Parts: sequence; structure tokens; C-alpha cells
Amino acid sequence: MTAKTPLTVLGLGPMGQAMVTRFLDAGHPTTVWNRTPSRADALVAKGAARAATAADAVAANRLLVLSLTDYAAMDDVLAGVDLAGRVVVNLSSETPGKTVEAAARLAGRGAELLVGGVMANAEMVGHPDAYVFYSGPREVFDRHADALAVIGRPDYLGADHGLAQMLYQAQLDVFLTSLAAMLHGIALARSAGVSAERFAPYLSDNVSTLSMYVPGIAKHVDSGEHPGDLATTAMMGATAAHVVGASEAAGIDAGLPGAVKSLYDRAIAAGHGKDSFTALVNVLRG
Amino acid sequence: MTAKTPLTVLGLGPMGQAMVTRFLDAGHPTTVWNRTPSRADALVAKGAARAATAADAVAANRLLVLSLTDYAAMDDVLAGVDLAGRVVVNLSSETPGKTVEAAARLAGRGAELLVGGVMANAEMVGHPDAYVFYSGPREVFDRHADALAVIGRPDYLGADHGLAQMLYQAQLDVFLTSLAAMLHGIALARSAGVSAERFAPYLSDNVSTLSMYVPGIAKHVDSGEHPGDLATTAMMGATAAHVVGASEAAGIDAGLPGAVKSLYDRAIAAGHGKDSFTALVNVLRG
Repeated sequence: MTAKTPLTVLGLGPMGQAMVTRFLDAGHPTTVWNRTPSRADALVAKGAARAATAADAVAANRLLVLSLTDYAAMDDVLAGVDLAGRVVVNLSSETPGKTVEAAARLAGRGAELLVGGVMANAEMVGHPDAYVFYSGPREVFDRHADALAVIGRPDYLGADHGLAQMLYQAQLDVFLTSLAAMLHGIALARSAGVSAERFAPYLSDNVSTLSMYVPGIAKHVDSGEHPGDLATTAMMGATAAHVVGASEAAGIDAGLPGAVKSLYDRAIAAGHGKDSFTALVNVLRG
Repeated sequence: MTAKTPLTVLGLGPMGQAMVTRFLDAGHPTTVWNRTPSRADALVAKGAARAATAADAVAANRLLVLSLTDYAAMDDVLAGVDLAGRVVVNLSSETPGKTVEAAARLAGRGAELLVGGVMANAEMVGHPDAYVFYSGPREVFDRHADALAVIGRPDYLGADHGLAQMLYQAQLDVFLTSLAAMLHGIALARSAGVSAERFAPYLSDNVSTLSMYVPGIAKHVDSGEHPGDLATTAMMGATAAHVVGASEAAGIDAGLPGAVKSLYDRAIAAGHGKDSFTALVNVLRG
């Protein structure tokens, strides 16, 4: 059995805490730090080493795993800290462009950045279904892939630091929008006296069909051809308008379905009325 | 074997055509009419009776099934037609309020309205997974439930005509918004050089997890309690802002993620930062 790489985790929200627990379970000597020190207590009881300051935490190990709100929080936490020779694996959410800028800033301080996007919630970290997008220097990834596998299957996308965050944001885009849509649908149902519990089985069936559409959508978008055999942009746009009307009449905020209707309106105005709804992608691109 | 109820289908788009085919297969004598008569040709070849005018189609049978763009199209098609003694099963999309108004107008002409919302696309009509929401007078529904079962499992919601359209719109709300989100996520991925085909397996996994969240969301919304144990509104709102930033930087229209971000912004401003994202429902209600 080889010795497990010692590492430091900065940021002990639910996600950071779940990661530290997995690293400890896998035998990695783990140093932890959080701005509110009490968040480390349970982890120290499990065997983590507590660092009094962020500088101490960084000094303790060459491999640093960050789980913060965003990259501004990283700059804040690491301000004035000596980073020479460190590998920063930043798993915080951020726009792709800012990760690219951060990589340059960290390089100027002698550190290498690996950008990660964790495709799991805190409960699922380390679960066989959890995976993490990574981008940055290939050899940095390869050196630490075994340790990183502890928190989720590593999925290396390429050297461009922005890639991992771009796919992470694309996934969260779909996830957050769909969750908001589910809440919106529930609000509509409840406005008619149908409880969320009663509506739930219908809603569950509904979202369970979505994955079925993915291959066809992908084919249309990549090919640029949008044959509208069954459900056209015109028909679905009419329904989008009904959803907005139903929302407004029920006193439910129509901003979200209104944004969907706007895409249909523009696609129809651009001549895509008889095409598949996948032609909406043409109005999404500026 | 009992004789199958003869009926008339008005509106022969992909959905209407699929319904007529199922009715014919099930042995229902079926009369058809469409504004563009050629759409009836294939159905007549399968055994449907062609009506020359909408008035003839209505005169042919007491049970009328409508598959049109909306309820304005029904008013248009049935203008000046004698409807005395007819049951109008309107499966067109519409706002709930307009179906209630239509029921009153039809009653004044001696006809009864059953409002339907078909939870299937044309390809799935009559499939065991297809179902149809109905609302309107219970005895009218009961009288025709067997015939209507041919196009999908009938799900009767109640006497209020608006109910079926409200749940239909709630389902389409979630469906259309999620489909648009999927296209938006694909557009983001493609902006980073990742094809839709390469992104598709990730996207498919992503939307496959949505149904897992339904019971928890329903429990929060019905109870009005939104404990934010794992993913808080503040954390998810920060990601929503990153999605908007990533979209804008990539030149992808940010209207849809912007509508999601706006809900998070308002929920946080209303003091729900530490609650679960399900607290968004509080800002959806006016």
C-alpha cells in the first residue's frame, strides 16, 4: 500500500466537509481551515489536522483543495500567503473567464491551478455516480488524479483552464433552470388547489422523459438542421404563450416562462415557425 | 363486443392525425375534418369518413374531439355551426381561464365542454405511458371515458373546466423551460468547442437526476418550511450569477438564466439566503 498524498482543504461548507470526510476515510492526511473555525471541529474529531490560519494551512501541504463560493473568495483567503510550489485545485463555482485570469495570477506566485467543477451535491461526494470536471495542465492533473478520485470520478477535459467551469456552468445552467421550472409548475398547480404532493407523481414522470430527447436535440444542433416533423416551434411557442397567460392569471411571477416565450417569439420571427423547437439554439447565439 | 361510439375529429395536425389513427384502430367510426382538406387523405385511406365542412363534421356525430392550436381556433371553426346536443372534447392548449369562458359560451349553444390536456406528443398518443388530463362535468366524462381511453389513459381532475388546462400548462411549463435550458446548456458547451454530441451523455445524466428531487421539493412547498441543509439559496444563487456571467462572456443570450438569477436575487433579498432553494416558491407567488 502506497502512502496517500497529504493535502489541505480550505473552505468547510457542506461540500468541503463532505470532501474532507472522504479524504480521511481514504487515508489521506488532511489539514483543514475555515474562516469560521468551529466548522472544523467535527472533522478534527475524525482525524483532520486543524490549521490556525490560511497561511499555516497552505504551508502544511503542497496540494491545496479549495471549496469556496467563488474565485474572489480564493484571492481573499490566499492574500499575502506564500504559494510557491503549490498546486491549487479550485473546486469553487466561477465563470470560465475568471478561472483563466486566476491561473495567470497564481502562476505569477509560483503556483499551478487545476480548475474543477464538482458534479455532485455534498451528499453525493465520493459516490460512484459523482464526477468532477477538471481542466488545466495535463501533467498536474495526472500527478493528482488518484487523490482526486476520492471525491468523484475525475473527468479531464483539456489544458484550457476555462473548460471545466464552462461545462460545469452548462450543467448547472440546465439544473438550476429546471429546478426553478419545477417550482414554477408546482406554484401553478397549487394556484388551482392541487397540492405539490398530488402534483409530484405527474411532475416526476414529466422530467423523467427529458433525457429521451437529448440525442435528437444534439443531432439537430450539431448538424444545424431542425426538421419540425412532430412538434414545431410555432405549436410549442403557442403553448409557451399559454403558460405565460396561465401564470399571469394565477398571480404567479411569469419571468421564467416569459424568458422561454421570448425565445420562441424570436425564433418564429426569424422564420423558424415550421422547424423543430431545437431551432431556438439559433436565437441563443448572439 | 359492444359497438364503438362514432365520433368526429376536427383538426388534423400531427396530434389529430395520430388520434384518428388510434380511434380507427380501436374500431370507432370516425369522421374527420381539417381546414386544409389534404391532411385527411391518408386517414380516409385508413377508413375515416371525410366531412366537406366543419358543419357537416359536427352534424355527423354527437361526440366531437378537437385538436387545434387554441380555443380561438375552436370559436373560428365552429362559428355558425349548430352544436345542440354535442359534447365538445377540446384537447387544444389554452389558458385555464379561457376554457371556463368557453364552457359558458358552448352551454349557451346547447353543447357540453370537456377540457383535455394531452400528456403525450403525436408519436406517443395511445401508448401505455400516454395520459390525458380532463376536467368538466363528471357525468359527461364518465359517458365517454372508454372512447377517450383509446388516445391515452384518462385522468379526470374535477368539475372546474380550468383544472385540466392548469395542470397541462404546469407540466408544459416545466417541459418547455427544461428543453430550452437544455439547448442553452448545449450552446454554452459548444461555445467552448464541445459538441452537443460530446456533451449529450453529461446532459442526459444531469436531467435524469431531476425526478429524485421532486418528493423533497413537494414536501418543502406544501409545508412552507425550507430547511437549507445542503444547498442554500445563497450558494445556488452565486452559481446562477456565474451561469449568467458565463453566458454573457460566451455571447449566448442570458435571458433564460437571467430569469433564474432574478428569482434567487429576490429570494435572497427577502431573507431566504440560508434556506433551501425551494424557498424560491415564495417569490413566485405575487
